[in-house]
Amino acid sequence: MQSRLVAFQGVHGAYSELAARQLLGESFQTFPCETFDDVFLAVVKGKASHAAIPIENSLAGSIHQNYDLLQQHPLHIIAETYVRVEHALLCHVDSSLAEIKRVRSHPQALAQCSDFFRAHRKIKAEAFYDTAGAAQSLAEEHLTDVAAIAGAHAADLYHLKVLRHNLENQKHNFTRFLLISKKNKKPDIDTINKSYKCSLTFDPPKDQAGLLFKVLGVFALREINLLKIESRPLPSEAFAYRFYLDIEGHIQDSRVAKAIDHLGEVANSLRVLGCYPSAIHTTKHTTKSKSIRSRK
Amino acid sequence: MQSRLVAFQGVHGAYSELAARQLLGESFQTFPCETFDDVFLAVVKGKASHAAIPIENSLAGSIHQNYDLLQQHPLHIIAETYVRVEHALLCHVDSSLAEIKRVRSHPQALAQCSDFFRAHRKIKAEAFYDTAGAAQSLAEEHLTDVAAIAGAHAADLYHLKVLRHNLENQKHNFTRFLLISKKNKKPDIDTINKSYKCSLTFDPPKDQAGLLFKVLGVFALREINLLKIESRPLPSEAFAYRFYLDIEGHIQDSRVAKAIDHLGEVANSLRVLGCYPSAIHTTKHTTKSKSIRSRK
Repeated sequence: MQSRLVAFQGVHGAYSELAARQLLGESFQTFPCETFDDVFLAVVKGKASHAAIPIENSLAGSIHQNYDLLQQHPLHIIAETYVRVEHALLCHVDSSLAEIKRVRSHPQALAQCSDFFRAHRKIKAEAFYDTAGAAQSLAEEHLTDVAAIAGAHAADLYHLKVLRHNLENQKHNFTRFLLISKKNKKPDIDTINKSYKCSLTFDPPKDQAGLLFKVLGVFALREINLLKIESRPLPSEAFAYRFYLDIEGHIQDSRVAKAIDHLGEVANSLRVLGCYPSAIHTTKHTTKSKSIRSRK
Repeated sequence: MQSRLVAFQGVHGAYSELAARQLLGESFQTFPCETFDDVFLAVVKGKASHAAIPIENSLAGSIHQNYDLLQQHPLHIIAETYVRVEHALLCHVDSSLAEIKRVRSHPQALAQCSDFFRAHRKIKAEAFYDTAGAAQSLAEEHLTDVAAIAGAHAADLYHLKVLRHNLENQKHNFTRFLLISKKNKKPDIDTINKSYKCSLTFDPPKDQAGLLFKVLGVFALREINLLKIESRPLPSEAFAYRFYLDIEGHIQDSRVAKAIDHLGEVANSLRVLGCYPSAIHTTKHTTKSKSIRSRK
């Protein structure tokens, strides 16, 4: 078991790696994986001690694939963090905006920066696998007429320069990341109240009107706050749903434990995915190396 | 005003266009737009009578950007449909699998077909803007050593052949599409009960514990079924949320109208996005031209 290794999907410089740094600091090594399946397997098989995975984006929604993987594998969520998605325009150190003919990035990032392309009609957008991979490709191919859209932190990594910061049209764009591990982390008993969050999933019995009202009663009657609720249609069966719930508190608090027991009486396939300290999502800039290291 | 024109994002052959055909048949013309903003503006400005937009995918989650656009513009949801995402491998009619060296598609589609690439190590995946655009590019560039991953219906359109159907790893992959229009559609009075769905959004007052319980009580006490619920963190403000709700019924049913009035008393910024006939999502194949025309 690699005790200080965090798996993430993508190449070095990906937003997931930035999230890992925000959560664990520089004393951990990071381990790039090709797919989310590989990320989970790395932790399950003990190749990595932790993984940092995106779970929801403020523009694109919840990443159901990672909820599915959380449900498939016996891992625990032990922390969360929010990363502001700030796209920068990166190029070779000897290049300038006037030389740029093409800009590479993930199609979603290119779309999020469409105002830039509208203002620079001669520059062609070029689809790429991922944002950090686009930055890496400029460095590897020594291209001076191609730029990449990626996080500014990828510039240091690939010896590129930042031509422009905040290229995205919509500034309020952030992604919530989870830190997962095989080993559950016990909370400090003093801090298990409002500062903790507990993530649950369950399937309600089908066609039972008002079930959700009963489910929420379990928490409302105990004055436990709900932080997130989402129903997801399960494509394997018509009209079957799965629920995701984040509640305030820790399962070691008996009020929370009793509410979860009570939920088990009214819902199917209840699973506690983890209890972990709440992170506050702010819009402050977090892509500078300084702030990455601040939680070290 | 173009009375029989449906705007959609992407190029001809996109899954959104397939959804438009499922909803309206062949008697409507389709109008490709570059971005979702352009799609909404086309309807608002009267360039198109309708638009077909994706709203949630079973693997990738709700598309918040389109919820935002629904909230910004004075348009109504008038219908919904589910499209099964079935990726096919398409190539030039004179080519064969043995000749293929590269496969183009949207990175998400390439990732969803990773098993194929694992089984064909010599074939390189190449990122492209969108699935239908990748198919179009083969046709335009007369390439015989490149294939595309797109819906099988794009083969007819671009005179390509289907090398393989169902290339996706995970078969349960579908997208829910909405049909939107400036003009609201009145229901047939006989059918306004169980077969209709009503989509709402609202912002709860901040920090009010148990609010969601009250909100759901509005519907539960009137025995109105909830079909979808989702809370979305609003990045503009820490701990601010917006809710999406789909309920069973039509606002012309007085029980539903009263429940919505009641909701208005307890929640902020309530908006009814539309009431429309429920579509059943099944896993049956829907990408064949025949079935596209079946609702004409």
